[in-house]
Amino acid sequence: MTNNTGITDTVRTALREDIGSGDITSLLIDEAKISKAIIISRQDAVICGLEWAVEVFRQLDKRVKLHWHVKDGDKASANQILCNLEGPARALLAGERTALNFLQTLSGTATRTARYVAAIQGTHAKILDTRKTIPGLRHAQKYAVRCGGGMNHRMGLYDAILIKENHIEAAGSLENAIARSQQARAGVPVEVEVETLDQLRRALAAGVKRILLDNMSIEQLSQAVAITGGRAGLEASGGVNLNNVRSIAQTGVDYISVGDLTKDIEAVDLSMRFEH
Amino acid sequence: MTNNTGITDTVRTALREDIGSGDITSLLIDEAKISKAIIISRQDAVICGLEWAVEVFRQLDKRVKLHWHVKDGDKASANQILCNLEGPARALLAGERTALNFLQTLSGTATRTARYVAAIQGTHAKILDTRKTIPGLRHAQKYAVRCGGGMNHRMGLYDAILIKENHIEAAGSLENAIARSQQARAGVPVEVEVETLDQLRRALAAGVKRILLDNMSIEQLSQAVAITGGRAGLEASGGVNLNNVRSIAQTGVDYISVGDLTKDIEAVDLSMRFEH
Amino acid sequence: MTNNTGITDTVRTALREDIGSGDITSLLIDEAKISKAIIISRQDAVICGLEWAVEVFRQLDKRVKLHWHVKDGDKASANQILCNLEGPARALLAGERTALNFLQTLSGTATRTARYVAAIQGTHAKILDTRKTIPGLRHAQKYAVRCGGGMNHRMGLYDAILIKENHIEAAGSLENAIARSQQARAGVPVEVEVETLDQLRRALAAGVKRILLDNMSIEQLSQAVAITGGRAGLEASGGVNLNNVRSIAQTGVDYISVGDLTKDIEAVDLSMRFEH
Amino acid sequence: MTNNTGITDTVRTALREDIGSGDITSLLIDEAKISKAIIISRQDAVICGLEWAVEVFRQLDKRVKLHWHVKDGDKASANQILCNLEGPARALLAGERTALNFLQTLSGTATRTARYVAAIQGTHAKILDTRKTIPGLRHAQKYAVRCGGGMNHRMGLYDAILIKENHIEAAGSLENAIARSQQARAGVPVEVEVETLDQLRRALAAGVKRILLDNMSIEQLSQAVAITGGRAGLEASGGVNLNNVRSIAQTGVDYISVGDLTKDIEAVDLSMRFEH
Amino acid sequence: MTNNTGITDTVRTALREDIGSGDITSLLIDEAKISKAIIISRQDAVICGLEWAVEVFRQLDKRVKLHWHVKDGDKASANQILCNLEGPARALLAGERTALNFLQTLSGTATRTARYVAAIQGTHAKILDTRKTIPGLRHAQKYAVRCGGGMNHRMGLYDAILIKENHIEAAGSLENAIARSQQARAGVPVEVEVETLDQLRRALAAGVKRILLDNMSIEQLSQAVAITGGRAGLEASGGVNLNNVRSIAQTGVDYISVGDLTKDIEAVDLSMRFEH
Amino acid sequence: MTNNTGITDTVRTALREDIGSGDITSLLIDEAKISKAIIISRQDAVICGLEWAVEVFRQLDKRVKLHWHVKDGDKASANQILCNLEGPARALLAGERTALNFLQTLSGTATRTARYVAAIQGTHAKILDTRKTIPGLRHAQKYAVRCGGGMNHRMGLYDAILIKENHIEAAGSLENAIARSQQARAGVPVEVEVETLDQLRRALAAGVKRILLDNMSIEQLSQAVAITGGRAGLEASGGVNLNNVRSIAQTGVDYISVGDLTKDIEAVDLSMRFEH
Repeated sequence: MTNNTGITDTVRTALREDIGSGDITSLLIDEAKISKAIIISRQDAVICGLEWAVEVFRQLDKRVKLHWHVKDGDKASANQILCNLEGPARALLAGERTALNFLQTLSGTATRTARYVAAIQGTHAKILDTRKTIPGLRHAQKYAVRCGGGMNHRMGLYDAILIKENHIEAAGSLENAIARSQQARAGVPVEVEVETLDQLRRALAAGVKRILLDNMSIEQLSQAVAITGGRAGLEASGGVNLNNVRSIAQTGVDYISVGDLTKDIEAVDLSMRFEH
Repeated sequence: MTNNTGITDTVRTALREDIGSGDITSLLIDEAKISKAIIISRQDAVICGLEWAVEVFRQLDKRVKLHWHVKDGDKASANQILCNLEGPARALLAGERTALNFLQTLSGTATRTARYVAAIQGTHAKILDTRKTIPGLRHAQKYAVRCGGGMNHRMGLYDAILIKENHIEAAGSLENAIARSQQARAGVPVEVEVETLDQLRRALAAGVKRILLDNMSIEQLSQAVAITGGRAGLEASGGVNLNNVRSIAQTGVDYISVGDLTKDIEAVDLSMRFEH
Repeated sequence: MTNNTGITDTVRTALREDIGSGDITSLLIDEAKISKAIIISRQDAVICGLEWAVEVFRQLDKRVKLHWHVKDGDKASANQILCNLEGPARALLAGERTALNFLQTLSGTATRTARYVAAIQGTHAKILDTRKTIPGLRHAQKYAVRCGGGMNHRMGLYDAILIKENHIEAAGSLENAIARSQQARAGVPVEVEVETLDQLRRALAAGVKRILLDNMSIEQLSQAVAITGGRAGLEASGGVNLNNVRSIAQTGVDYISVGDLTKDIEAVDLSMRFEH
Repeated sequence: MTNNTGITDTVRTALREDIGSGDITSLLIDEAKISKAIIISRQDAVICGLEWAVEVFRQLDKRVKLHWHVKDGDKASANQILCNLEGPARALLAGERTALNFLQTLSGTATRTARYVAAIQGTHAKILDTRKTIPGLRHAQKYAVRCGGGMNHRMGLYDAILIKENHIEAAGSLENAIARSQQARAGVPVEVEVETLDQLRRALAAGVKRILLDNMSIEQLSQAVAITGGRAGLEASGGVNLNNVRSIAQTGVDYISVGDLTKDIEAVDLSMRFEH
Repeated sequence: MTNNTGITDTVRTALREDIGSGDITSLLIDEAKISKAIIISRQDAVICGLEWAVEVFRQLDKRVKLHWHVKDGDKASANQILCNLEGPARALLAGERTALNFLQTLSGTATRTARYVAAIQGTHAKILDTRKTIPGLRHAQKYAVRCGGGMNHRMGLYDAILIKENHIEAAGSLENAIARSQQARAGVPVEVEVETLDQLRRALAAGVKRILLDNMSIEQLSQAVAITGGRAGLEASGGVNLNNVRSIAQTGVDYISVGDLTKDIEAVDLSMRFEH
Repeated sequence: MTNNTGITDTVRTALREDIGSGDITSLLIDEAKISKAIIISRQDAVICGLEWAVEVFRQLDKRVKLHWHVKDGDKASANQILCNLEGPARALLAGERTALNFLQTLSGTATRTARYVAAIQGTHAKILDTRKTIPGLRHAQKYAVRCGGGMNHRMGLYDAILIKENHIEAAGSLENAIARSQQARAGVPVEVEVETLDQLRRALAAGVKRILLDNMSIEQLSQAVAITGGRAGLEASGGVNLNNVRSIAQTGVDYISVGDLTKDIEAVDLSMRFEH
């Protein structure tokens, strides 16, 4: 269940950015005019963001009706009609850009994720996102990743712990660091980041169940999988792109985390067209 | 003067996304520990977003001190140190990701803008942004465009009017549409969008001072410049990219608006490193 | 299109002021009681503020129904019924004062504006407002000015530039100041403030298209119009009141900006009456 | 003690109205420039609103220093310097209008109140405000009334009860209405509104300690004072203005409530001048 | 009339606490599934908080329908069905805990109040609450006290004055302190706190109408009632509990204020059960 | 690291409740007066809430200085001085009640937790909280539980999954339910609730690592520990109180979750005393 409060607030902020002290262009449009419009995709894409677009028009004018032909996570092909809209022309025009901005941004993330997921098809690995997100859109982007077939890594600093080398130093030993990580919240997920196979072995010896392999070569990753022998979930991280993701997946790691999923945006080319 | 209230709120939202109910990793770090860290750029980039990064740490712990070696709009080269930080280790770690997310996103926009500006160097044209922005970041992105050497188009629906074909139809004539656009606010900027040279001639005849040339070919753009003869500012729009922007600029248009500047994000590769 | 988010928030703040920890008077009223009421104007007035009054009752109790006999900008005469209301008596009584406070304040601004507009009837000039507004009500007051037949000057520091003497000094010359004003945002409206006819001539020579004539006498204004000869829009400003506004308009200036429109409030005398 | 949270929020809203997406005029001013300025009153006035003005500059730039020569409630004479300011020129210019808008509005209320207070000097009566206030400014206006020498009536529907004719009807009798008014909160102040001397006698017989005399003539008011003989506090209300307030006060009533104090605004003429 | 804005905001905060970045458990539930559920009380209790529970589901999914069998202030017995719910299973599960948290907390306060009210049945005294409340829930708790049959003391520092020994010292005399307390707001309720019978006599001599007897013994309270002889309302305060409240009431005091009503919470045992 | 934004907002809400339109009692206190005060505990307690108290005075008047003699989690004995305060008397008095309300509420939770922790001293079990919290205070209460020596269960619906009988039915099998719980977020903690030993065996067979034993008898719990043999973490839940918690702990379960920790509040008896 998404947190609707979050969508309401995010859309309010976005509308405030675009409309500010009032839409002066609407003076050119008759107040009573009712229009019809469609949203189409001008490229193949995985669509994401329907609830945000709906909320944009709900906040502007409850009389706008939207009829969707897709749902979040669906694949759309170029020139496919995604939605029919009908309502006061002023509201349709006032909400057009903001609704499209949400849809094109989130569909961009879903589409990119789907490319990574397709690239490793047939392997055992799962595509994960990271905390490298666009400020203000983390929850929305993480939702888009799921729509694209990816899985979410931790949401933030509050729902999982990643133990790094400097934490281990501070705690005196890996065992101490793990013990401290469990002091406050029972069962909080713990992952340990390792940079060498030696560190990996120590983490396994300490009974760690999830290990991040930081910036390892394909060969190192393969060795890590062999060493681990299923005793822990392994996550490859660092420098992943569409060219190397399949090779990484084929090493047998369980997860591959990809910063590009959410730190970069390649907006999907959508447009809204009015029927005269 | 930027609107600090906006920065405060945007940063608060971003921290809430990352820290939520509390940073549980900080349990691994001694509360009294003071650390030093640096932010470096791992690539050539135009830097943008200092005030956002400062605000991140200000909200977390006022004892964190930042000493910057660049200012917004400066070019940084790979491996250059952008900032020295010193303060409580827990606050530095808690703010690291959010501060970098702001800097990498906004520097991405500034850097991309700078590439377009460089591409048309020596021509008369100016690079403009659009309203195709990441929801919640419009003001910040428009600031980043300026840092990259670009100019801002209108901020939103409230500070300028773009008259399109359907407005003209609704108003009965171009002249009527312009007259109506001036009814509410004295001196509001008006731009007319044209798709053909014929429409351009009619707009010029009506005394329009700013005209958007939508999706015209290089040849059409050149003709438009000739027809206009300096009577109005001309803006080329539609399908602009780094490959064609120089040709477009060489037609003699005054402005080139580029949706890619702000609808896509290519985060700059920054990192924060701790000195042990 | 007004920004409904703004109305929602402004009304919420106003209700919080009046109801605070709860309306204790409502204990005297039976919870189930349904009442009818009317809002009447006790004076001739231009009415403004319907959406705010509607939102007051919407936030209190969605069962309150309002049936309006006027719309914003309509002239009402003394003792005219503006609205019939029906709903839970507690909600009608709880919202009465806040709804009237919005209507009487905004109708006050609309009515005052209409007096200025009437005073210059037949001349070429337009009545403008200023940034001298009641804190928290700028958008609402600027809307009321439009309802009264006036036009809006810039909304704030963000949507137009007024170049004053000290800006010119700081920039070295008027030409430099204008150039700098165009650096950031393409096509941002620029007005230059002049205090003497000599300054006016220099502004015209620099090609300025909108000029504010600050505190000039009727004679100076007439000369200014003659000198300008239509080359720029002229705005008279400073010390304008209902006694002198017609003389000012008759000099031929294009705009007259009036601080009194929005910095002073003379509430329209409205009242809500309950049918027993 | 004023509620600072309220001031912070009110100022934030006002700055957002004026600065919106950013102060574009500040581009004409050197970022490093430090300026000095003064705020002067161009008329005799009772000053009110210092904390709001201070907060405006605090939110814009903490480096702005203000040195005040008056405090809230002080009388200032025409051309008196109220405040010296020093700080970044951009912040001074960005905050000028908003700070003045608060000061001129609230000083207007304080000054008007002081006129009423002066008009009844030597009598026993006190000047009260009402709930007819500018939406969003009730607390601030009520504070200004106190600065002008007036007293506050109830703040809103939550801190006192005014029993009117229709409440009495609903309750069956005045005694019942009073009893019900005391059910929820122990000791909540109760005032009964009467329109005739007969109603007054009944209210006195019921032991009411505070009575509002609605729209009575001077003669009726005098009789009411005689009938009451000190058994209750009497408040004259309805149609009070500067011409009749002294006659009303001389009837011997204890309080005179004046809607004009807060529903109308006559802004004090203040200005901010920069030293070059 | 309660302030619905307060309920909306309080519920939003509570849902944000529980749902945060999204309800991940809902993945286990079919999105289309409609469920029925009941809320029952597992103990005898006075029920309070219906509007908060309704708002929880309204914010999550407007399709959830609630049918209540009780209203606020009703007594429920163990195993009684309070409410039937029907709607999307995901929303029912997502809102269950938050809705119950409001109901069990507020019903706890109402139930505790009812116990105190029952304990003094037949006496003249009234049970009052205090300002010792759970931060963020004052209005809600004061409402719950009323539902339990108690009365509210002042809401906060803004709607009544309690003069204590140190105020009297600061003002020079009790008479001065009372006079100062009336300077700002006409008719603001004043209560004087006394610790000895001698102080009580002085307060009565000064004409005080409401007196708080702080930490007096039963005998002292009886003497205070005798001394006062109806000239003022007397409030016993300090160390009141269910064991001594009846003895205190039998002394003849008018009010007994009980901090335990709102500073402690003993949640009522409620549960929500799903019909499969 | 706590989320300071949360503390700031929670304190703002609490001050608004208590101060509302302004502290009218402060009129009795000289504005310039500087006072000293102490906060003492009148009972043995575990103290919690320092940051909230600090923030109360920070928002009221930055000149108030607090010098603490304890830190969160410390045990204080009756009559121990917790804090020395010095600052403007008005601010100290205005903040007294709100600061104490935070401290007494959160210390109440910490003290109660410490009692449970002491009761099971020497056993292997850990005390956990639940989602049964006071609306608006979840993060604060969970922090107080940690200060009292307890551990936090999941924060909300977003950071862990508890699979119940009806989830298993909906998914077809326990295995399916677990698989679905892992689809969205990699490594999200999963706990399965069982009511019988048979269900326990099935959960163990499915490899579940954390199991909640709902409402089992002491004997059943002992059997569950024996059956499990360390293959999963076991949590006893339901009907836990100070009388039976040690017996439960001695069965060998790993965790005991206690709703009473946070759904009930027994405020610690604190007071603030002024030095004259």
